[in-house]
Amino acid sequence: MGQLIKGKPVADAISAALTKEVEELKVKGIVPKLTIVRVGANGSDLAYERGALKRCQSIGIATEVKELPEDISQDKFIEELKKVNDDKSTHGILVFRPFPKQLSESVIKYVIAPEKDVDCFSPVNVAKVMENDQTGFAPCTPSAVIEILKHYNVPMKGKKAVVIGRSMVVGKPVSMLLLNEHATVTICHSRTENMPAVCSEADVLIVGIGKAKMIDSAYVKEGAAVIDVGINVDEQGNLCGDADTDDCVNKASVITPVPGGVGAVTTSILAKHVVKACKQQNNL
Amino acid sequence: MGQLIKGKPVADAISAALTKEVEELKVKGIVPKLTIVRVGANGSDLAYERGALKRCQSIGIATEVKELPEDISQDKFIEELKKVNDDKSTHGILVFRPFPKQLSESVIKYVIAPEKDVDCFSPVNVAKVMENDQTGFAPCTPSAVIEILKHYNVPMKGKKAVVIGRSMVVGKPVSMLLLNEHATVTICHSRTENMPAVCSEADVLIVGIGKAKMIDSAYVKEGAAVIDVGINVDEQGNLCGDADTDDCVNKASVITPVPGGVGAVTTSILAKHVVKACKQQNNL
Repeated sequence: MGQLIKGKPVADAISAALTKEVEELKVKGIVPKLTIVRVGANGSDLAYERGALKRCQSIGIATEVKELPEDISQDKFIEELKKVNDDKSTHGILVFRPFPKQLSESVIKYVIAPEKDVDCFSPVNVAKVMENDQTGFAPCTPSAVIEILKHYNVPMKGKKAVVIGRSMVVGKPVSMLLLNEHATVTICHSRTENMPAVCSEADVLIVGIGKAKMIDSAYVKEGAAVIDVGINVDEQGNLCGDADTDDCVNKASVITPVPGGVGAVTTSILAKHVVKACKQQNNL
Repeated sequence: MGQLIKGKPVADAISAALTKEVEELKVKGIVPKLTIVRVGANGSDLAYERGALKRCQSIGIATEVKELPEDISQDKFIEELKKVNDDKSTHGILVFRPFPKQLSESVIKYVIAPEKDVDCFSPVNVAKVMENDQTGFAPCTPSAVIEILKHYNVPMKGKKAVVIGRSMVVGKPVSMLLLNEHATVTICHSRTENMPAVCSEADVLIVGIGKAKMIDSAYVKEGAAVIDVGINVDEQGNLCGDADTDDCVNKASVITPVPGGVGAVTTSILAKHVVKACKQQNNL
């Protein structure tokens, strides 16, 4: 019987360290600031925004929300984003996606200033993730996965890590981050033949496939660490992950719950990236 | 006993198709052109340049070489590269690397026009490789690997592909390209524990680790396809790959030789990318 490993202690540890860093910056007269750019008022954006603002404020990071009308034109949106790029008091920018359909993500991603792009929207940061260039910003969710593994002392170096899912949000970037930790990384997806056999060789199993409770203990090696990145709603209307936690925990050594696992760590990563961006912009 | 699969037939097939495409472009008054930017006169650059020029010329692609002095300053180099970016007659640019030490690759990679960057120097193209954005240009060597597998009808979809090496030149991009072909992809490297066991599960084994004849038949599953990206010199002074071809061929179904394998295909990929860039720039 394995152990549930929660996100909160990880988030708390990151936040405590950041609070000290921010205090030191303030002594130098520098206040890190996050500006959120949101189009419309989508419920899940608002929920994440509340969490992000609360986290940043508790750490001492200044925040601002730029809410733009749902029907904003692309030209106007780009003009507004450039203003945030040019705002010297803003060090980190989070742009909520997906956009309404009049806005082209493939155009706008080239507009955000890469040095302020704290959630890997810019292609410059995508390339830096692949190149293992530490000056860049990996997306918050895959970064949270790595922080959890490190916090709970799960060995990665030389170990077999299997990632289920090849999205740009989770699968591909987390694979690159696991490579940076010197894991041997396998990427599985919908076309993978005999996926349970492939997954059950993993010392570390990262699940990000977007299907409620799809991964049961047949996918889990005895003693493996399982990190569940999924957020789904089950038949009873409750939040659940991509893994069947109750079943997997019988074989895993550790497994993150949903809710209360990876999702609890992402806003601390966001805050961490804002502080990092602030330091870089101040040559610290 | 497996079969040696050579690069020449692959290169010939690509070249034949390109020759037709170039003829059709010329009817429209368009001549695709590659400009090579070379600093100094390094022997291996010159050897590759000769092959690239010969290949392009045989296909009907115009070529130009801009040779710059070994001691050129970074500002002057950037000025010259921008001229090539702005030259409307040039559709594809190949910049030889590594540079002499006064030139910073991490600065210059942001200068090359992404739409003309036919060998994936720009971060924009690195990101497109990761995102599977077909408007971009993957590096020529990993692209050659995929073309060889396709030419010889090696199945990739759902199959286990193992890549040895995690460089930005071969390992990481070829892993992304194999994912695009729907393979289940494992990336191994120097820290991988029990590498022969991991590799000998591969239906498709890509070897790009840079060590002469390191990979013997213990790494090869019976019936696997082996693509050897290495170019090394053995004790006798002969060119050899990262695989011990004579040993591996006993277990592999197919294996590329060195020389005469992947290396024979890269200049055709370069030519293919120049024609693609030319068409994109002419909205064709």
